[in-house]
Amino acid sequence: MSFRRLISDEPQYLQPQHPRGLTVVITGHGKGKTTAALGMALRALGHGLKVSIVQFMKGDMHAGEWDAVAKLDDSVELVATGRGFLGLQGNPSSRQQHRDNAQQALNLVRDRMARGDCDLLILDEINNAVHLKLVDLEQVLDLIHSRPAGMHLVLTGRDACPEVIEAADTVSEVREIKHAYRKGIEPQPGIDY
Amino acid sequence: MSFRRLISDEPQYLQPQHPRGLTVVITGHGKGKTTAALGMALRALGHGLKVSIVQFMKGDMHAGEWDAVAKLDDSVELVATGRGFLGLQGNPSSRQQHRDNAQQALNLVRDRMARGDCDLLILDEINNAVHLKLVDLEQVLDLIHSRPAGMHLVLTGRDACPEVIEAADTVSEVREIKHAYRKGIEPQPGIDY
Repeated sequence: MSFRRLISDEPQYLQPQHPRGLTVVITGHGKGKTTAALGMALRALGHGLKVSIVQFMKGDMHAGEWDAVAKLDDSVELVATGRGFLGLQGNPSSRQQHRDNAQQALNLVRDRMARGDCDLLILDEINNAVHLKLVDLEQVLDLIHSRPAGMHLVLTGRDACPEVIEAADTVSEVREIKHAYRKGIEPQPGIDY
Repeated sequence: MSFRRLISDEPQYLQPQHPRGLTVVITGHGKGKTTAALGMALRALGHGLKVSIVQFMKGDMHAGEWDAVAKLDDSVELVATGRGFLGLQGNPSSRQQHRDNAQQALNLVRDRMARGDCDLLILDEINNAVHLKLVDLEQVLDLIHSRPAGMHLVLTGRDACPEVIEAADTVSEVREIKHAYRKGIEPQPGIDY
């Protein structure tokens, strides 16, 4: 047990009168998009909800959240897909390989949606996958429109399309004010990956 | 076990040549600041790091992350402090009560920093606490400057002071593009709290 409150009054428990699923988009070029989605997964875990996270374009690089999710109970699932960032220097895969992998990931997502057995479905980096044409805009709009009414859908990644923003309930843009890597500081575990 | 990868090639494991602590600020008026910090906590857990989260101005309202952290092992600690948002309609506490509680929270933070036994220290909503004068700017700058070299410090909350931004390594501003509550949709568990 590693939680406590400093004040002694009973806290207030919120409960929506009209529970419903939301479509949330986290976009922009700053740090904090995937991490915000992971934070929602943690919150959802606290509420006893079931979470599925499908990461696009990220299966090639180990990240802390992989090992974290492996430590949690089965209510949180994470599937890392992708062959890294297309166009990034040194990436060995062809555009077709990237696209095939993203389309496989999309099939996983459709399956989760059809089964309807998760409460929060996170499509990490999918906006970027659309921007790079690994996934079609129409495919993402189809997903948004076929979201079961009680399921939350979270889409992260830079350069979200206006049509995706239009279709969402809550949209945040994470802007970079400054970033350590511009001072030549390497990515640090726990913060950057 | 609820983690898997879709591709079969071995992933790359990053390891910084120069590990070091960072000061990260997540500010702005959009949704995703606390959640981004919680996501870093989850990542850090995956890397086997020790995490302390001190929430300011939030001890009065139950949040999903409280129950989530209570489910994790003792490597993640969360202390919820505060009497809600000063100035928010219906908040029953006086300015002095808010300030006293925030100052108690600050003592907890100083204690964690002096002990130096955590790798990631998250001061959730502290920027807002400074803005509302529950914590002094100088007190926060003191914390930033006394951060042990290997410890990460994350400060969230809207309206971060320019001096705090100046002192940080990485700063993101989360802007609201749209938010469900503007359409009259209530806060939903797992997403908003």
